[in-house]
Amino acid sequence: MQSIQATIITIGDELLIGQVIDTNSAFIAQSLNAIGILVKSRTAVGDNKKDIIEAMDLAIAQNKVVILTGGLGPTADDITKPLLNDYFGGKMIVHEPTLAHITHIFENIHKRPMIERNRKQAEVPDVCEVLFNETGTAPGMAFIKNGTLIFSLPGVPHEMKWLMTNKVIDKIKQNFKPNFVAHRTLLTAGIGESFLADLIADFEASLPETIKLAYLPNYGMVRLRLTGSSSNEIALNTSLDKLFNSLKTFVTEYLVTDLDETLEVVVGKLLKEKNQTVSTAESCTGGFIGHLLSKHAGSSQFYTGGIISYDNRIKTEFLDVPTHILQTVGAVSKEAVEQMALAVRSKMNTDFAVSVSGIMGPSGQTDEKPLGMVWIGVANREKVVSKVLYLRFDRHKNIEVTANQAINLLRLLIINKI
Amino acid sequence: MQSIQATIITIGDELLIGQVIDTNSAFIAQSLNAIGILVKSRTAVGDNKKDIIEAMDLAIAQNKVVILTGGLGPTADDITKPLLNDYFGGKMIVHEPTLAHITHIFENIHKRPMIERNRKQAEVPDVCEVLFNETGTAPGMAFIKNGTLIFSLPGVPHEMKWLMTNKVIDKIKQNFKPNFVAHRTLLTAGIGESFLADLIADFEASLPETIKLAYLPNYGMVRLRLTGSSSNEIALNTSLDKLFNSLKTFVTEYLVTDLDETLEVVVGKLLKEKNQTVSTAESCTGGFIGHLLSKHAGSSQFYTGGIISYDNRIKTEFLDVPTHILQTVGAVSKEAVEQMALAVRSKMNTDFAVSVSGIMGPSGQTDEKPLGMVWIGVANREKVVSKVLYLRFDRHKNIEVTANQAINLLRLLIINKI
Repeated sequence: MQSIQATIITIGDELLIGQVIDTNSAFIAQSLNAIGILVKSRTAVGDNKKDIIEAMDLAIAQNKVVILTGGLGPTADDITKPLLNDYFGGKMIVHEPTLAHITHIFENIHKRPMIERNRKQAEVPDVCEVLFNETGTAPGMAFIKNGTLIFSLPGVPHEMKWLMTNKVIDKIKQNFKPNFVAHRTLLTAGIGESFLADLIADFEASLPETIKLAYLPNYGMVRLRLTGSSSNEIALNTSLDKLFNSLKTFVTEYLVTDLDETLEVVVGKLLKEKNQTVSTAESCTGGFIGHLLSKHAGSSQFYTGGIISYDNRIKTEFLDVPTHILQTVGAVSKEAVEQMALAVRSKMNTDFAVSVSGIMGPSGQTDEKPLGMVWIGVANREKVVSKVLYLRFDRHKNIEVTANQAINLLRLLIINKI
Repeated sequence: MQSIQATIITIGDELLIGQVIDTNSAFIAQSLNAIGILVKSRTAVGDNKKDIIEAMDLAIAQNKVVILTGGLGPTADDITKPLLNDYFGGKMIVHEPTLAHITHIFENIHKRPMIERNRKQAEVPDVCEVLFNETGTAPGMAFIKNGTLIFSLPGVPHEMKWLMTNKVIDKIKQNFKPNFVAHRTLLTAGIGESFLADLIADFEASLPETIKLAYLPNYGMVRLRLTGSSSNEIALNTSLDKLFNSLKTFVTEYLVTDLDETLEVVVGKLLKEKNQTVSTAESCTGGFIGHLLSKHAGSSQFYTGGIISYDNRIKTEFLDVPTHILQTVGAVSKEAVEQMALAVRSKMNTDFAVSVSGIMGPSGQTDEKPLGMVWIGVANREKVVSKVLYLRFDRHKNIEVTANQAINLLRLLIINKI
């Protein structure tokens, strides 16, 4: 048993000028963590030989596993492959299975002639083990230096994910027997981070040194995570389960889920269990609630559909919001949002409905209705409940928080808490 | 004039176990880049003193600007502030304006009693310059060491953004006169990365060494970016403009925009210019197209609304897709998607409509209709056009690519290219 540390190095100027948000690192970190590899740091460097080499030198000196992503595309801004070849002292050769695979993709899928640039993607340093990439044209590569495994993966997310899952993890497991790392995660709603901390202060003070507690606030909810690492998997899980059960007793009132899952997944599960359905009537979120409810596999079991009533005319014509309501109390009102929920539920004949109408910014406010004022509503076959929010984020964050608060209100209605 | 380099250090175990995707770094990098600061690297470290100090030592030795984010929340997993106090040799004092601000937030906004934990957020090392945070309870801090400016910012995105924009950038500009950095970016659609590279090979070969060209492929489109850096702003812009105009002549046929903007922003502008409107009829994207069209400020000028017809029943009842179509060719068909576009456009009385229906995975395929098969349709007052896609990503990526391809088809209809 060893405590195995890893570093993730992402390569590409686009990360350093902020043109692209790095989602690869999170996936890689999760995959490594699941087999007990501790990610010690993550680094992003530009398409610059000196910086890449410096980052690799440091990473290899300090870690047993190094994952590089990016820099393997077909175009000339990519310098990683020749650099790796020099770094590990190899010479470039054609990897025949990869060449056959690329040829197949161009002939049978793209149905376009292959050009020299694509051919070159089949070239690899002869000192690497090729990780055959079924999902794209750039092969993954594995190197070893001073007992450290170095993996180079394409930056295209679905290709990187496929290679991590199907090649990299196995290879790491063949080489190392890492400590077991385990987490227990729960999600709370309706209590702020500091108040939660006070509520569980005694629990936190009683934690053994080997177990860490983290607070992860987001969207007006707070996730709590316990983490431990040990060579004894059974003892670790027993200890974590005991502590986690204790933690849950402190937060019962606010508990959304004791699994590491998102709010919309919790709601989807509740609906599927009861074989019930939901529809949506969205104004200011413009379809984002529908997207959250339908983004996970299996959502067609409970999500029926929705009306995006962005323009007030659609609220009247499709959701029967009377024009006198729009003209008096307005579209951002208890009356409008309750009518929207009632109408979409009835018209789509679902068990539940959720509705929102608000002022997302950066303009549209009035004296009575400030920026960030949002009404959210939920209905079932018996009743309709609504709530007003006053948000103070930017437009994008306001949309996200509104959607999450609305889905949480739906959850409370489903479990009969409102 | 100097070439000023920066490093971004993000702090938090949640980044290393992959529970959170780091969006802060991209914003920080963009902000620094805009004033000519080159981000040399980005590093993420855990809530661990030794790792944070190592990262800071290295960053300060190599850069003139270091931005730290995270580790400033009210709960006990946050260790950054005492660490910074020790690192820079200060002692903790109460920052009275921040204390008054926190008290105000609790008394007047949260309307809850303040607890000791919140009070402590007003404590800062006496060796820092406090960056007063109007948007939250955790103040920003600026330190200086060996001529390097070190900023510590909360990890909450909207607070970090506010402090970067309103405090950090000014402070950097007061201390340094960085080289000017400028970019020119264009977006292409309908041509793969390698073919694009061949198309502009002559242009690329003729580029001066001081100007870099990068390819940023995404969603079946490719963004091209020229970047230069110089002490002479006028000469740099003149040179970039000339090269950029030349580049545009090579890609005219595929050009979506010559600004650094997203596809949905391009489409929104086209519609606003002509005072035209669009509606959506979404099945497999579940509201994501509506979300993209409405996420930017000003979208109510052109986005009227939509029907999310996730269940087939909704396709029939709200979009008049005949049951015989659903029973014969099915919901994922040219017939269904064209009817959806025609119906939503007519019922919402918009100038354009866009519709999608497909199999996003991981299940739902049949012999005739593989996973990733998607029909997209667009309509105006004269005609309806549709197209089939065969995607091979995971569910989430399939949704994103479908939405972008559908919005691009809408763009082509708006500009009379189909």
